[in-house]
Amino acid sequence: MSAGNEEKKTVNIGVVGYGYWGPNLVRNFSELHQARVHTVADLNPKVLEIVARRFPATKTTTDFQEMIRDPEIDAVAIATPVNTHFSLAMAALKAGKHVWLEKPMAETSLQARALVEEAEKRGLILHVDHTFIYTGTVRKMKELIDAGDLGKILYYDSIRVNLGLFQRDVNVISDLGVHDFSILDYLFEEHPVAVSAAGINHFPGTPENLAYITLFYESGLIAHANVSWLAPVKVRQILIGGANKMITYDDLEPSEKLKIYDKGVSFTDDPKQIHEMRVGYRTGDMWAPKVDGSEALRVEGEHFVDCIVNGTKPITDGHLGLRVVEVIEAATSSMRGRGETVHLPRQGKSV
Amino acid sequence: MSAGNEEKKTVNIGVVGYGYWGPNLVRNFSELHQARVHTVADLNPKVLEIVARRFPATKTTTDFQEMIRDPEIDAVAIATPVNTHFSLAMAALKAGKHVWLEKPMAETSLQARALVEEAEKRGLILHVDHTFIYTGTVRKMKELIDAGDLGKILYYDSIRVNLGLFQRDVNVISDLGVHDFSILDYLFEEHPVAVSAAGINHFPGTPENLAYITLFYESGLIAHANVSWLAPVKVRQILIGGANKMITYDDLEPSEKLKIYDKGVSFTDDPKQIHEMRVGYRTGDMWAPKVDGSEALRVEGEHFVDCIVNGTKPITDGHLGLRVVEVIEAATSSMRGRGETVHLPRQGKSV
Amino acid sequence: MSAGNEEKKTVNIGVVGYGYWGPNLVRNFSELHQARVHTVADLNPKVLEIVARRFPATKTTTDFQEMIRDPEIDAVAIATPVNTHFSLAMAALKAGKHVWLEKPMAETSLQARALVEEAEKRGLILHVDHTFIYTGTVRKMKELIDAGDLGKILYYDSIRVNLGLFQRDVNVISDLGVHDFSILDYLFEEHPVAVSAAGINHFPGTPENLAYITLFYESGLIAHANVSWLAPVKVRQILIGGANKMITYDDLEPSEKLKIYDKGVSFTDDPKQIHEMRVGYRTGDMWAPKVDGSEALRVEGEHFVDCIVNGTKPITDGHLGLRVVEVIEAATSSMRGRGETVHLPRQGKSV
Amino acid sequence: MSAGNEEKKTVNIGVVGYGYWGPNLVRNFSELHQARVHTVADLNPKVLEIVARRFPATKTTTDFQEMIRDPEIDAVAIATPVNTHFSLAMAALKAGKHVWLEKPMAETSLQARALVEEAEKRGLILHVDHTFIYTGTVRKMKELIDAGDLGKILYYDSIRVNLGLFQRDVNVISDLGVHDFSILDYLFEEHPVAVSAAGINHFPGTPENLAYITLFYESGLIAHANVSWLAPVKVRQILIGGANKMITYDDLEPSEKLKIYDKGVSFTDDPKQIHEMRVGYRTGDMWAPKVDGSEALRVEGEHFVDCIVNGTKPITDGHLGLRVVEVIEAATSSMRGRGETVHLPRQGKSV
Repeated sequence: MSAGNEEKKTVNIGVVGYGYWGPNLVRNFSELHQARVHTVADLNPKVLEIVARRFPATKTTTDFQEMIRDPEIDAVAIATPVNTHFSLAMAALKAGKHVWLEKPMAETSLQARALVEEAEKRGLILHVDHTFIYTGTVRKMKELIDAGDLGKILYYDSIRVNLGLFQRDVNVISDLGVHDFSILDYLFEEHPVAVSAAGINHFPGTPENLAYITLFYESGLIAHANVSWLAPVKVRQILIGGANKMITYDDLEPSEKLKIYDKGVSFTDDPKQIHEMRVGYRTGDMWAPKVDGSEALRVEGEHFVDCIVNGTKPITDGHLGLRVVEVIEAATSSMRGRGETVHLPRQGKSV
Repeated sequence: MSAGNEEKKTVNIGVVGYGYWGPNLVRNFSELHQARVHTVADLNPKVLEIVARRFPATKTTTDFQEMIRDPEIDAVAIATPVNTHFSLAMAALKAGKHVWLEKPMAETSLQARALVEEAEKRGLILHVDHTFIYTGTVRKMKELIDAGDLGKILYYDSIRVNLGLFQRDVNVISDLGVHDFSILDYLFEEHPVAVSAAGINHFPGTPENLAYITLFYESGLIAHANVSWLAPVKVRQILIGGANKMITYDDLEPSEKLKIYDKGVSFTDDPKQIHEMRVGYRTGDMWAPKVDGSEALRVEGEHFVDCIVNGTKPITDGHLGLRVVEVIEAATSSMRGRGETVHLPRQGKSV
Repeated sequence: MSAGNEEKKTVNIGVVGYGYWGPNLVRNFSELHQARVHTVADLNPKVLEIVARRFPATKTTTDFQEMIRDPEIDAVAIATPVNTHFSLAMAALKAGKHVWLEKPMAETSLQARALVEEAEKRGLILHVDHTFIYTGTVRKMKELIDAGDLGKILYYDSIRVNLGLFQRDVNVISDLGVHDFSILDYLFEEHPVAVSAAGINHFPGTPENLAYITLFYESGLIAHANVSWLAPVKVRQILIGGANKMITYDDLEPSEKLKIYDKGVSFTDDPKQIHEMRVGYRTGDMWAPKVDGSEALRVEGEHFVDCIVNGTKPITDGHLGLRVVEVIEAATSSMRGRGETVHLPRQGKSV
Repeated sequence: MSAGNEEKKTVNIGVVGYGYWGPNLVRNFSELHQARVHTVADLNPKVLEIVARRFPATKTTTDFQEMIRDPEIDAVAIATPVNTHFSLAMAALKAGKHVWLEKPMAETSLQARALVEEAEKRGLILHVDHTFIYTGTVRKMKELIDAGDLGKILYYDSIRVNLGLFQRDVNVISDLGVHDFSILDYLFEEHPVAVSAAGINHFPGTPENLAYITLFYESGLIAHANVSWLAPVKVRQILIGGANKMITYDDLEPSEKLKIYDKGVSFTDDPKQIHEMRVGYRTGDMWAPKVDGSEALRVEGEHFVDCIVNGTKPITDGHLGLRVVEVIEAATSSMRGRGETVHLPRQGKSV
């Protein structure tokens, strides 16, 4: 099938990289109705033997070029180290394939922008795998925020820490902060205007393993992410404060991940109170909505295939992926300057 | 009684300010064996009526000057708004009284330094009420750190948020961050060399209600405090990461506030691993030591009276109080510059 | 003041027993607008000295008879060991005093019934101090149940355990189970028809320190209480299951003690499903309502004084207290027979 | 391979029943070094197609008799409804096969005893799949108890509730209580001497969905299990109280499932205290040991194969399985008599 084909056919996907995340992609794409895993490419022949045994109908190859030359393949999913993203994705686009790209989409915003432009020029889908956006919890938060339930949004505060999984090639901002940057981009219409970050690599020669990132927005919204590979306990928590209601999101809760507090602040101009406190508090009920528990990767896979079949734009398209890379870049730059403010280019979301 | 008197006499204390914290001081000093509350001063006569009814043997006055002129009074405890600390404490010291001063000890480091010098010149006790230092939990942490159990200290990470208690005259760094700055000063031999802070006042004309402060130390230690008056839930948590062991401290846990994790990281130079990950993880048991549950203010009150009677230096003396004010000052300055790094004067703890 | 007096006068209360609970009663009654603590009686003169110092306007006596002879006293609050409740309360009623009686109201249902009858004969208030009934949380549960939100009530399940506070004169059913029996009586219109209990005294010569009690109701409701003085952790949890909604109540949660789950079961008669499972599950949102946080003892004290002033019946009157004693009696009897079913007399709540 | 064969060969396993649990068995046995899944039998041919696709080397059949006649098969694993356990297991044993049997091993103790005798007569392994016994947590508890760390064991208290999974053919005691009965049998040398249980089926025509079971032991140990299919939240908690130390086990905790409290009680004969309380409390540290996180089913599968190869007795052999069925039988009988005590035959563990 080529892009734009009207008949309902199966989308043939080639997956490159069968390491940590690749097997999840292969399993997921295999279970989709309108897609199948046509080929898996990896440099390691042993890994391909495992694929061959488990998925006898899937072709395997150590030659990425061969895979993208195959006219049967409609889309290429790239699950390789970040420093290979640009060259592999660019080659796939140039070969006329739709692309599914692991996050972060590239090492630099320059690379990311080039990929966005190439995909647009060729009318191909460029999908960045920011999986969190496809969870029921994040989609529910978006729904609540868009409905205006929270009132004016005051802050976003995230903690994303645990022991382990030091990365060799990316720092903790790229590895963990990336989730918050994509969630922020998805939830709010605004793009941050400035970033201040602090962080440290406790072990010389390794990337930063702990960082604190603050994002400033023109509306007065402030966002903060505390990310670390060195905490004794795993924490995955987000607080979002609105003037009317506030949200807590604890991803490790087996149920009730999302709680909405009917709590807020109000500002008084009452002259009698003016010499006292001018801020009032309101507390009320708490509410934990039922959240769609579908596997995010499944939802995302279906969305990707739909976009290919219908020629529509993915929610986590290259533009979103590019904005996330810009924030990573700015935050890393600020961190290396011990918190020095770094300004981000002003941009609309649709640019 | 004058300072240094050898006979065991009762220490007469005058308390100024009977608002939020003053009643706690009066109740606590009343229950000490070697002290009594001689006088309570407050500008509000109605408040003094309450004192008179509850404590018939205690004198009350609206005239602070009268109180510090009274030769029977040995020490003055000051629990008034921060902007009055300097003038009241200076007057008390000049009148030859020992001083117990609420935190933060002054609005500026200049004022704080002047108080320290005045107290030293006169050989008087200057005690700053950083109550947390006298909790069993913080003392236990100090004990564990001093024993070297944690190995090299890598980071200190604190969350101190809740809804409510907007202050009129001080920002959230002075109100909540102050606790972390004093705990850090007490736990570690080092003074921070630089600060980067971000924060916001969501309501014009009010002080900053939310802030993120990062402290940098020469040894590589990094400390972070997330403080807010705008969170839907109350959180009081500290993580301390060492190379060998890590601590979590949850002040809202009814028991087991303190947990020590036998978890750590190690760095390998093994050439076989060098192309792989160079950081190894170790996980083991967790241990929650029994902690002394005595009321901190009681422990602190006894310590203050002991220092007066024996002429010794309080743990939370003016020097510690001054260093804390310096950090508040630097953090506030960095916050107003959106995270711009502010350097702190290098100093030994004994200066 | 005599009962029924029309003018608004202060109710004079005599408190007997200034041990563990007595001081709470004295403090609380002292703070009520329409009441004052006239006299405190205790056999221990040292304890009375403390009262005299703290409450100079209150009379003290070691002679209970003297106190109840005093015509100024309107009501007597009895906070002495259970084995003295009957004789002291009976004497107070015979002296024409309203009575506030600690729980359980008597050692036997025979004694409890005699007290109820004496109070009714004389038109006096007989109030039993089942404090839990006056908490905002239990009142909120009652409100939800009465509104029918939960649907048919299926079960009540309580855990009430901790380490410590072995009682010398009563077993753990009297000490802890009593709370559940009074809450059950208050929440539901029904009285249990049978009891089965198991328990043990691990230390010869002491009362049973751990017990499991099951109450059976004609409607099909089943209630269970797990009570113990020997658990390593404190637990205070109640589950109430209805066909439509279910409640959890965790008394140790600082906020959100009460959670209502929109979860339930439904029973199908669909012939297609009949060979499969006939029970369906429904899961939905969770909701934690804001609960009145007033001190229960304050609410209860005001209610008691109101009842005296207006001649109305307390919520936790002698009848409720009697029914609770009957359940304690039956449960203790079943426990001594290793779970043997003990039937309870059928009775309406208004008897 | 026949039982007792000395050469190291692969154990050929036939699995009957590919419903809820069967796939877990097949996956697990497939991954063992010394075993392979030779045949899968199920009455449903569609299910067998799935097996064929996933495991092309495995034979499939709808004919159980054919499977047990196959001389290549050494052992048969039975994962079918409880009411088929006896006939299938007996047929397999008579065909000379070792047997792995799901829990509970049979509907009645009569059936269970017949299976035990048949296996012993033929020298075949009869393994009952009480998976919990093979978790790191339960093994750690056993280790602590055997080492005497807890002192005299006073009680065992379990809560095992959640919403859902009504069974059609067994009551909640067979479904959930069975876990506690096997854990109790494994942990302690003693067998209970009496049982008292209460329970209810809220939906006519369905098995009991909620039950409270108390087990009495001669040593004074008391055990209790609260099991339900009707709770709004999932709970999996066990408390074990010893005179010296106490254990909590929360199976839903991601880490630190097991906590040991250095808390206990002591009994005084001090004549000065004898009129006061005779029981003293001791509180100390809490300790959460690192627990082996291996998958229990994998550990159990290896143990089963080892027993076959070496001719040794499984930990969860037919005797343990039989004792568990006896307790289920007695508890169900007591429950139907509203808590009436049911005595269990006295027996040694080795009978």
